[in-house]
Amino acid sequence: MVSTEAAFVIESSVPSPVAASVAAVAVAVAAEVEVIKITKSKLTNIEIQTAPILDFDKGDPTMYEAYWKLIGDDFKITISSSEALSYFANPKSFCWYMLPKLEHEIKNLHNLVGNAVVEGRHIVVGNGSSQLIQAALYALAEPLDPPSPISVVSAAPFYSCYPQIADCMRSRLFKWGGDAHAYNDDKAYIEMVTSPNNPDGELRGPVLKRANGMLVHDLAYYWPQYTAITNPVDQNIMLFTMSKCTGHAGSRIGWAIVKDPDVAKRMVRFMEISTIGVSKEAQLRAVAILEMISTNSCPSNFFEFGRSVMTERWTKLREALQGTDVLQVPDFPPKHCNFKQDYNECHPAYAWMKAQEGVNLEEVMKEEKIRVRGGGTFGCPNNYARVSMLGRDKDVDLLLKRLPSIFKRLTF
Amino acid sequence: MVSTEAAFVIESSVPSPVAASVAAVAVAVAAEVEVIKITKSKLTNIEIQTAPILDFDKGDPTMYEAYWKLIGDDFKITISSSEALSYFANPKSFCWYMLPKLEHEIKNLHNLVGNAVVEGRHIVVGNGSSQLIQAALYALAEPLDPPSPISVVSAAPFYSCYPQIADCMRSRLFKWGGDAHAYNDDKAYIEMVTSPNNPDGELRGPVLKRANGMLVHDLAYYWPQYTAITNPVDQNIMLFTMSKCTGHAGSRIGWAIVKDPDVAKRMVRFMEISTIGVSKEAQLRAVAILEMISTNSCPSNFFEFGRSVMTERWTKLREALQGTDVLQVPDFPPKHCNFKQDYNECHPAYAWMKAQEGVNLEEVMKEEKIRVRGGGTFGCPNNYARVSMLGRDKDVDLLLKRLPSIFKRLTF
Repeated sequence: MVSTEAAFVIESSVPSPVAASVAAVAVAVAAEVEVIKITKSKLTNIEIQTAPILDFDKGDPTMYEAYWKLIGDDFKITISSSEALSYFANPKSFCWYMLPKLEHEIKNLHNLVGNAVVEGRHIVVGNGSSQLIQAALYALAEPLDPPSPISVVSAAPFYSCYPQIADCMRSRLFKWGGDAHAYNDDKAYIEMVTSPNNPDGELRGPVLKRANGMLVHDLAYYWPQYTAITNPVDQNIMLFTMSKCTGHAGSRIGWAIVKDPDVAKRMVRFMEISTIGVSKEAQLRAVAILEMISTNSCPSNFFEFGRSVMTERWTKLREALQGTDVLQVPDFPPKHCNFKQDYNECHPAYAWMKAQEGVNLEEVMKEEKIRVRGGGTFGCPNNYARVSMLGRDKDVDLLLKRLPSIFKRLTF
Repeated sequence: MVSTEAAFVIESSVPSPVAASVAAVAVAVAAEVEVIKITKSKLTNIEIQTAPILDFDKGDPTMYEAYWKLIGDDFKITISSSEALSYFANPKSFCWYMLPKLEHEIKNLHNLVGNAVVEGRHIVVGNGSSQLIQAALYALAEPLDPPSPISVVSAAPFYSCYPQIADCMRSRLFKWGGDAHAYNDDKAYIEMVTSPNNPDGELRGPVLKRANGMLVHDLAYYWPQYTAITNPVDQNIMLFTMSKCTGHAGSRIGWAIVKDPDVAKRMVRFMEISTIGVSKEAQLRAVAILEMISTNSCPSNFFEFGRSVMTERWTKLREALQGTDVLQVPDFPPKHCNFKQDYNECHPAYAWMKAQEGVNLEEVMKEEKIRVRGGGTFGCPNNYARVSMLGRDKDVDLLLKRLPSIFKRLTF
């Protein structure tokens, strides 16, 4: 077991074992609870004492469980003990560990949704997009043999994991360089462009547009359940992940769409040294899941399901926030979605909440036993916090019930 | 596609796409071959021209396919589309992404085989043992906050991937420090102890025994099919992998057995940042496979199969080498194996071949269309080469057939 403090040191969307442990224990054994001090809450002592801790810190996409349970056993996969023993899946490809059918299904899905150009592009599969971020940084920085580490920047609010991914190994190739808005060096740099952005859901382009800049587009949330698909993105390096597309975070399958074959080869080289490829079992399931979505062979359309859940959650959240100005979330004007062929409201995977200046919103919500991720980890003041909208229905309902108590705390 | 030269740049057991590509194409379309220059071979031009390129460079454990095919479909696993969506598998554990049943089966198997002490130890699962090597280096070096990178050393002949694993990210935490025998600095260091050793099969202990040294024991090949199990190893960090134990290299499942809980937690921290854990599908299959072996619920005993295949291959190889001194392999005196409860010959996963001084053995064998890994990548002269004994029967038979031509080349 790690200590309770450790959970707060982990400033990332990396799931914290402690938080989850606490949450799980609290849910399972709601009667055995700690006694906490309550000063201003409207909830009674008993209610607070027995309330489970709600984890809205992580982006664990458990909302999709309901859909896949509905699908049932019709779409299970079976793997025999003699399948896929070799390291190799496609020796003829530069990405030799990738199942050819996975590449096919990835391209199919993008063509169907229209969110990325894949024709003539190189697909690199990774153990989630986290690993592919590192692979991309390596592939861009390594050939430059930089005398000092290349700065990796991103416009605040930026994804809270970028700093630790860039700095973990204390590499001489690259290092975290902070908010792209504040970057004023004339050296080469890498800008992470996250669109829709994590945490605030904005569709984004690069902030810095200099000749010596390199871009990595993190498009994990550029899917119709979260946002309008306004155009097929056609950038040098684009990253996607099963976690946020289909909800299969446990599979650890991500992919990069790469223009330059040499960059793609260096990314594969990184994958070789880092993990000698990617689990074949996970790839086999990804093939089945993606094919199912592309051929729409499920009883109900997958993206329709995702969009309806997100719409309902955001509608309820906005209703709950109506009439108060102590807690705000961004507004998104509807945009035309080429996939839906209609105007689409945006319903981001996270609610980027803002309280009055000077408030520590993460701390306030913790007092109501709601774990969220504070603004500081995204390069912003702590009156901001990120609240995941990807959890289970019952937890979202509990969150909405506790919001009035939060408002009270913020009003006093 | 990568260039042909690229295959030779990759000095590692990392599978080279090009080599495999060439091998696969050659096997599949043996008639369409390049014309190569033959000067001294006993084979006829036609024979050489139509002979497929044999890949004995990689340690791809395809020899185990025969066993798992024999087992058939009785032991397949089934995964529904709604299973294991979450990042979490066991939120109560410090290794929150590890299936509890996988930990159980790993410990079961070690208790059965008697090759490692697991009682009271912490299991950390990784995407193959390659990733766990990095996790271990990170976990050992990071808390020291070293002013200059800590040297990672290993006694030559050392596993050819250690240098690139240590140096890939140009980390300020650690760097490759070369042959442990030559290390004469008084600074802290990390020694990789590989036992049985890759490439030469020797059972090993640390070379350096200094107070400021840290050890990582790579025990990938410490299984009864390769060597005598002389005692349960009880070291601080011990690494194992499905690839070499059961032959499931495609799964990318490795594990570390760790004494110090803080080291184990830092390894998990590395796993979080690197890949946010390990594929649940791969873990589910590993559970099924390990359970099958531990309960001996297969029609024939797994380790008996492995040992009989390795025994046969080594017997044939030694017979083929009899009467010549131009090519030698190490001898291993039988040792008492606690698992077999009898004396056991050692049959390493690789034949560490030695030719006369001055010969480039890798080049000589390449002329006979046999790809092996030259001694240089293991920190040794190039009259040594590593030949994998883990491939398919038909390839081993072809290798044995070509050995006389190699002898001729080495005699002239």
